[in-house]
Amino acid sequence: MNYKLISRIFALILVLEAIFMLPAIVIAACFDPLNVTLSFLISMGITLGGAGLFALFSIKAKKGFYAKEGLVCVSLSWILMGLFGALPFFLSGAIPNYVNALFEIVSGFTTTGASILSEIESLPKSVLYWRSFSHWIGGMGVLVFLLAIVPLSGRNDGFTIHLLRAESPGPDVGKLRPRMRQTALILYATYIVLTILDFGFLAAGGLNPFDALCTAFGTAGTGGFAIHNDSLAGFTPYLQNVCSVFMFLFGVNFSCYFLLLLRHFKAVFKDEELRLYILTVVISIAIITINIRNLPGMDSIWDALRHSAFQVTSIISTTGYSTVDFNAWPALSKSILVVLMVTGACAGSTCGGMKCVRILLLFKGMKRNISKMIHPQKVQPIRSGDKVVSEEIMANTNAYLSAYVIILALSCVVISADPGNFSFTTNFTAVVACFNNVGPGLGLVGPMGNYGDFSIVSKLVLILDMLAGRLEIFPILMLIGSGFGLRKKS
Amino acid sequence: MNYKLISRIFALILVLEAIFMLPAIVIAACFDPLNVTLSFLISMGITLGGAGLFALFSIKAKKGFYAKEGLVCVSLSWILMGLFGALPFFLSGAIPNYVNALFEIVSGFTTTGASILSEIESLPKSVLYWRSFSHWIGGMGVLVFLLAIVPLSGRNDGFTIHLLRAESPGPDVGKLRPRMRQTALILYATYIVLTILDFGFLAAGGLNPFDALCTAFGTAGTGGFAIHNDSLAGFTPYLQNVCSVFMFLFGVNFSCYFLLLLRHFKAVFKDEELRLYILTVVISIAIITINIRNLPGMDSIWDALRHSAFQVTSIISTTGYSTVDFNAWPALSKSILVVLMVTGACAGSTCGGMKCVRILLLFKGMKRNISKMIHPQKVQPIRSGDKVVSEEIMANTNAYLSAYVIILALSCVVISADPGNFSFTTNFTAVVACFNNVGPGLGLVGPMGNYGDFSIVSKLVLILDMLAGRLEIFPILMLIGSGFGLRKKS
Repeated sequence: MNYKLISRIFALILVLEAIFMLPAIVIAACFDPLNVTLSFLISMGITLGGAGLFALFSIKAKKGFYAKEGLVCVSLSWILMGLFGALPFFLSGAIPNYVNALFEIVSGFTTTGASILSEIESLPKSVLYWRSFSHWIGGMGVLVFLLAIVPLSGRNDGFTIHLLRAESPGPDVGKLRPRMRQTALILYATYIVLTILDFGFLAAGGLNPFDALCTAFGTAGTGGFAIHNDSLAGFTPYLQNVCSVFMFLFGVNFSCYFLLLLRHFKAVFKDEELRLYILTVVISIAIITINIRNLPGMDSIWDALRHSAFQVTSIISTTGYSTVDFNAWPALSKSILVVLMVTGACAGSTCGGMKCVRILLLFKGMKRNISKMIHPQKVQPIRSGDKVVSEEIMANTNAYLSAYVIILALSCVVISADPGNFSFTTNFTAVVACFNNVGPGLGLVGPMGNYGDFSIVSKLVLILDMLAGRLEIFPILMLIGSGFGLRKKS
Repeated sequence: MNYKLISRIFALILVLEAIFMLPAIVIAACFDPLNVTLSFLISMGITLGGAGLFALFSIKAKKGFYAKEGLVCVSLSWILMGLFGALPFFLSGAIPNYVNALFEIVSGFTTTGASILSEIESLPKSVLYWRSFSHWIGGMGVLVFLLAIVPLSGRNDGFTIHLLRAESPGPDVGKLRPRMRQTALILYATYIVLTILDFGFLAAGGLNPFDALCTAFGTAGTGGFAIHNDSLAGFTPYLQNVCSVFMFLFGVNFSCYFLLLLRHFKAVFKDEELRLYILTVVISIAIITINIRNLPGMDSIWDALRHSAFQVTSIISTTGYSTVDFNAWPALSKSILVVLMVTGACAGSTCGGMKCVRILLLFKGMKRNISKMIHPQKVQPIRSGDKVVSEEIMANTNAYLSAYVIILALSCVVISADPGNFSFTTNFTAVVACFNNVGPGLGLVGPMGNYGDFSIVSKLVLILDMLAGRLEIFPILMLIGSGFGLRKKS
């Protein structure tokens, strides 16, 4: 392992995180009591101190970086970011328990949006800002951001692609431009433009700038931390619809926007994943609208349609905002939402979950297998659009599903041991909602509930689940594997 | 498709089923009202009539049989067996609704043990016998039985292996002997000997012969239909322990017994699947014993151990007998049981679920994939014991998992649309329990509940799930695929 080079990346990440705290300090100075401002300043100081220590250790780092280091480095970076990012919550007294603070910020960075707080509105403005901003930071990935601004490895793209691959959602990272740094820049530019658009539409709807900004951050990162106790239930229908549209848009593969910009409309139209995503959204909205139209509180079919569209786009993009308590909806609607939690939206977006492209690949792999039973000798490559999908990606996708199911099952068992003895629905959907970076589940962790009642052990498991979900499992498994036997063999 | 040859197999299957009804007729004649005896006679007549029609159609059948025909043939055989096997329930008035009768007998043949009946003890003895006997018939598979007694295809083993592969549980069918017919004979002989042993131990414990026989059938097939309303709660501790031991034994790959008989102890000891199975059982029993030891009704730790051992062996072997209402157990115990429902016991046994060997293969595939990330060029075959697992089996196992997850999710959504609007726990575990051929789930379908409240549509979906689970998905998918596009391409 090239520990020195890893340390240098840690130092850079922490400097970046400290810089990210600056706006919160300004907000705290303007609106919040002095102790909150101080706690942000101290947090920033500690974070910079940490960066300094790593920088000291990283002096004379040699170049040369392998896939394994990339994966371990990404995992540890995210854990470090959580450990330091939790400081403002903890020091300001907003969340007096450090594990809770860690849960909250990891939930933020991983764009999960699962909260341990029941009372949000009384929090200092700067803390609310830090919560929402963490979604925006984590949505696109910090390392991608780092790549976009710092030429870490000179001309050696092999290094950056390891990092990018580990942090970006989806089974494959398409290079939009020959150089990875350019690709990272384009992705971040798209991200910023879409966020500004979202903010503009929200502000145009009469939302005050602070609320609009926080809501836009939560939408862009597909996170889901709201700044009101009832999530977005108090928003006007216009604002809710704006959010639905942008949650949907942030679930689309960002490279589609790049292709649109280049006027490659045909390529976008032919994108199988996008088609599946749109189809799933439309069908889900239709079924749920019909299913909930007669519930109390639904004044008309349009009302049902609005709530259905909001919840479907919120869940499939793994954002987790809510306008109603869907925990009280009929079983059919709830089941569909749980399935959408697992599928997620498109690869290359800010969303969590399995991603539609993986569902497509798994389905195609299954179909090929059946066909192989009939014609064992025939070579049958799997295609996605015009391209042949490499067997490496297929193997990767299959391994992903195996790991996904194993982690899900193990996490459920551990969470079930919680002294709270929660219901099967609560335990199962808590794990599904955290692992897929959604946020709210069903039962006690429904949109009106929170994760505060879980024990410390359960919260730590859920934190790991959130990280495993955001980093798509393998970096975290590699990290755990490095602790156990895998090191010997490599 | 060689429809004529398929028809011949259907005819043979139905003749066999009619013969299987004979003991029930004798029991009905001895113990039950005349109309019950008549209904069995009429059912037998109709079944023989059906056999005759198929036989007529199959005249001049040519030899030659492909994998696809094998899969479709197995699926249709099982559906046919259900359709005719439901007749005695329906005609005797024991289950006046034909779909319910079909649910009950498919649950029997697939060794699920999910029942739509709430009152069992008042049923005629012959009906109780037919219910339990259906487990025994379905446990080892009818086509395997057919192969054991009728030399269907002369010297052409390619034909029989297609059938055997489609009907036998597990990713691979090991030939114990060079000729498939001999293998089938050995398997059935083992099955019969173990059943007789089970019967002997139960009878020695003071159980009357009828109860002992029905319980042994349910245990051997790992089915789970009991002949008392409280399942096996009323049995003495000795009888419950006998059942625990035999449920465990029927979850072991039958070829292990054959190897033991040949004194190949080392091969058995080295069997990775067996080790995983034993380990899982021991750990699960230990955790659950500790978890339930202070519940009301547990007089001592030994009491807790007995109930824990019973429920664990019952669920992992996918039998589904119960001695207590585990639906009232703590969340941890319930979660473990749900996970055991999915894993199931060993391939080559009569149990359902995924089978331990698949879990092993999926885990190894995942590990290889992580290792490939570090060393992309290295060739890394997957081993099971001393043998290299073929990539074909790995692909098959991966496709199985994909299909498993997709079917599970779709079934849950359809069941959730049930007008009964059942809880998420009920819907989810109902599908898990039927698809893995377990029987009882949690919530309304817990050990003290039943499936009677589901709508006809839900029941039909669960029937398909039971068949898909018993035949390990692909034959049923192939059947559905034959209806849609797959035919064109083949």
